[in-house]
Amino acid sequence: MTDWRAIAAKKKAEQLALIPKEWTIKLDEIPHHIEADVSRIPETCGLLSATELQITNSDVADLLEKLAAGKWTSVSVTTAFYKRAIIAHHLTNCLTEIFIERALARAAELDDHLQKTGAVVGPLHGLPVSLKDQINIKGLESCMGYVSWVGIFAERNSVLTDILENAGAVLFVKTNIPQTLMWAETFNHVFGRTSNPYNRTLTSGGSSGGEGALVAMRGSPLGVGSDIGGSIRIPAAFCGTYGLRPSYGRVPYAGCVNSLEGQDSVPSVLGPLSNDLSGIKTFMKTVVDAKPWLKDPLAVRKRWSDDEYNLADHGNGKSLCFAIMWDDGMIVPHPPIIRGLEIVKNALLDAGHKVIDWKPLKHAEMSICLRDIWDAGSAEDFDVVTALTSEPVIASMSPSDGEPTVDIINRNKVAVAPGISAYHLWQTHKKKRILREEYLQLWEDTIQVTGTGRAVDAIISPAAPYTATRHGQNKSGQYTMVWNVLDYSALVIPVSKVNPEIDRVKPPHEFLNADDKANYDLYHPADFADAPISVQLVGRTLEEEAVIAMGEIVDAALKREATS
Amino acid sequence: MTDWRAIAAKKKAEQLALIPKEWTIKLDEIPHHIEADVSRIPETCGLLSATELQITNSDVADLLEKLAAGKWTSVSVTTAFYKRAIIAHHLTNCLTEIFIERALARAAELDDHLQKTGAVVGPLHGLPVSLKDQINIKGLESCMGYVSWVGIFAERNSVLTDILENAGAVLFVKTNIPQTLMWAETFNHVFGRTSNPYNRTLTSGGSSGGEGALVAMRGSPLGVGSDIGGSIRIPAAFCGTYGLRPSYGRVPYAGCVNSLEGQDSVPSVLGPLSNDLSGIKTFMKTVVDAKPWLKDPLAVRKRWSDDEYNLADHGNGKSLCFAIMWDDGMIVPHPPIIRGLEIVKNALLDAGHKVIDWKPLKHAEMSICLRDIWDAGSAEDFDVVTALTSEPVIASMSPSDGEPTVDIINRNKVAVAPGISAYHLWQTHKKKRILREEYLQLWEDTIQVTGTGRAVDAIISPAAPYTATRHGQNKSGQYTMVWNVLDYSALVIPVSKVNPEIDRVKPPHEFLNADDKANYDLYHPADFADAPISVQLVGRTLEEEAVIAMGEIVDAALKREATS
Repeated sequence: MTDWRAIAAKKKAEQLALIPKEWTIKLDEIPHHIEADVSRIPETCGLLSATELQITNSDVADLLEKLAAGKWTSVSVTTAFYKRAIIAHHLTNCLTEIFIERALARAAELDDHLQKTGAVVGPLHGLPVSLKDQINIKGLESCMGYVSWVGIFAERNSVLTDILENAGAVLFVKTNIPQTLMWAETFNHVFGRTSNPYNRTLTSGGSSGGEGALVAMRGSPLGVGSDIGGSIRIPAAFCGTYGLRPSYGRVPYAGCVNSLEGQDSVPSVLGPLSNDLSGIKTFMKTVVDAKPWLKDPLAVRKRWSDDEYNLADHGNGKSLCFAIMWDDGMIVPHPPIIRGLEIVKNALLDAGHKVIDWKPLKHAEMSICLRDIWDAGSAEDFDVVTALTSEPVIASMSPSDGEPTVDIINRNKVAVAPGISAYHLWQTHKKKRILREEYLQLWEDTIQVTGTGRAVDAIISPAAPYTATRHGQNKSGQYTMVWNVLDYSALVIPVSKVNPEIDRVKPPHEFLNADDKANYDLYHPADFADAPISVQLVGRTLEEEAVIAMGEIVDAALKREATS
Repeated sequence: MTDWRAIAAKKKAEQLALIPKEWTIKLDEIPHHIEADVSRIPETCGLLSATELQITNSDVADLLEKLAAGKWTSVSVTTAFYKRAIIAHHLTNCLTEIFIERALARAAELDDHLQKTGAVVGPLHGLPVSLKDQINIKGLESCMGYVSWVGIFAERNSVLTDILENAGAVLFVKTNIPQTLMWAETFNHVFGRTSNPYNRTLTSGGSSGGEGALVAMRGSPLGVGSDIGGSIRIPAAFCGTYGLRPSYGRVPYAGCVNSLEGQDSVPSVLGPLSNDLSGIKTFMKTVVDAKPWLKDPLAVRKRWSDDEYNLADHGNGKSLCFAIMWDDGMIVPHPPIIRGLEIVKNALLDAGHKVIDWKPLKHAEMSICLRDIWDAGSAEDFDVVTALTSEPVIASMSPSDGEPTVDIINRNKVAVAPGISAYHLWQTHKKKRILREEYLQLWEDTIQVTGTGRAVDAIISPAAPYTATRHGQNKSGQYTMVWNVLDYSALVIPVSKVNPEIDRVKPPHEFLNADDKANYDLYHPADFADAPISVQLVGRTLEEEAVIAMGEIVDAALKREATS
């Protein structure tokens, strides 16, 4: 058996060899070992033309309009994003699969179609779209950071891949993930570690950390991630992009590779990341309009509802009542997060909406419930996969001094962790159901206090108790995990960035527990400089249309506030 | 600890004592030990007045119209159905909880409301509705046939109970089930065995066997059952009523007691039984219109769609293409079932629809998958519940000679059955997902052969390989189980009845396996005399509206055929 290190090194070398020489030369001139904030380098490095910068700085609605009008060809748009994606990769190590020729050939076909017929092939005509590594594209690998899966080429597209291509998308890169996907940072033995574009000493989050970094660098206008406990929202929040966690089954998952396959208690979901809400909405409407339930039996038969998007269930969007969760009763967020919530609150009040406080219920129990579900069989799952090459199962996201290496756990140690019985798992499901029932009741009971005649329209919550942390320090996932347990639609919205001058250390509060104290002690403003500040907007199960619409309301309020 | 037999006997005695003396006297005159077919006795026994017969012979649409118009009071309608329910109970042993005073008081309230306001309280105003024993009504027991649960009074209504009451229903009886619910017949230590009204030597099916017998006797215009492997459809098919198995989460389940709680792999669902499709449709529309997702977190946020009911996805109902599954590749159905399918085929052809053959795919694998899921933790589940009183876990539905008794398995034997690990269960889920993907593809591929430009609109399938069997002989559940695994909406439609003169034994076919031969050998026409013949109409997941509409088309075609 080939040593797993050799397989990984060979794959990584092959990846780098796929980058065109002319781009590589330019990239070598980028001072990539110096700066922490590399987010502006695409603008300054000289690899992109003025038009390419204009293209890559456009929002999705603009891109689609210009592509459909033939003002920009898909080849030019795809080239621009590909070049910027390569810069992003050079600086943050965000890519896995690179397939330039194939993507450009597809773009040329679309251009040809438009020119010949005058018609777009679909609502995403010509738009480059990036995919998290686990989403299969026929003929490409989806090794998902497992050395053991290197060299396995997908025999067919995932259902989502088909839907995106049928809608006219140009799939152009796949993006980095942590081994096992079960980390909120991004590092694996094959592709290495992804860093945060705004401060490379910080993590881009995970598990869709490649997408977070790539989209934040504007190396992709629209990316697809997956989320089982925060894996779309944490990278989106840490990297300052928008990111939607849809409810179970709203976006088809069939045909992807995955971790913990068969763990159906709290299913992972696919969802979009983008630099603008037009990207999020276009993705969701396009996917749902494609009737995914005719292609994936787990996709929910629920059409896109303009009625729900127009907030028919929320007073048509007039005088909404939002509830802000300042902390979850377990960990008080760092000062920048609190400032972010305050900015949102003021913006919403100024826009004429109501804002009340959200009192969380049993978030600790929900987090434990989700951990129990993951742990029910994960050790066996990881063991079976990694046994193929004896690659170590990664036990920490912490880099050692200097170049990142890994702490590994003994394979046998993994193998002996027996998980729990199915009957025990059923008992966990009972607890979960009761927690969900209690939370629904909690939400419905707010009808007594909103003054709108409705329950709270949406919750505004931190996405984590901190902005992006240093690598290896993102260990508190409960601010996103609870919404997975509850299956609520949750949208990450960027608000601001950490400014050490403003976001000073606050005097110690009465600590809720040891984790809360540790989190307080973690905050040294200079460490978090330039990290994006974001919030989550949380709606009900299968309420994606309304969550996007309320996200637009929050976003518009924030933008008005920023320019006033 | 009181002996479990004493607890059961006391409960049964209390139940019988709740029946008014004046009804009991009349009932004593009914020759209930003589006849096999007791379905006409309500018409002949003299307990019901002419008006009461007219009421109980009305369909749900008529009842609701007359109730809303004040032509019949809810008290008179409830009284009529209650009296008929008591007759049904006397003859088939179909009831569990009896609460006449409470139901009539509620009916009087509704009558009062209508008289005072001129308005109905909701779409079910004044209609008596029966509930399977597991559906909680505040203040009543839901012992579900477990001696261990006798004496536990529900502290609150289930969500569905609230919805039905808010819609104006008069809940008036609860109905019998097998212990554990995991049988397709109906027998338990507390309430005993339920028989088939059309032939009491036959089973009423299960687990909603009390509902099947009660509705067939027209002792209830609308009943609610539950279905995890056929538990609505088998009693409906065996007793000649309509019965709908909706998709997971379309009808709220929260607040019911249940078996195998936490088994979320193939969830049990609630659904209606009725003697007419107006009952089925009214139930579904009423429940979905009540926005159950605001009351039960597992209820799917999907509004009732008139568009789907008008068959927008099925060519607006013109020239549909049905596919008939003559057998499932495992067991060839008895002659009456084949005749039923032929009747449906001819009726549909005569009505201008297309009919093709359905080629089943991997039904054996799906049945095994569902058994594996049930077995994953069921022994522990049964053991924990029955340990409270040491009541035996029932191991057979076969009565001994004479009065029914039970074979019991040793408690220790149950306790040692260890189930499987959560990781093992995950592997079963993977198999299930692949089976569901393959079946969806199979269905979609029929677009090549229907000639309608669409895939097959619905499958017509047997509900079992036989009509109602003798007690203890209903052991082949796969004709219903597969649709639970696939989560397809499935509606049972009555077609005819066994006529031993017509439904003769056929020459032996080439047997598919030992079970197939055993099933062939089981068929002696005289044994099955008068048993209802039914079919299942099977649509897609979450396609309840379209399945009901297509059911109406099939039903109308059958009725035209019968009268032509």
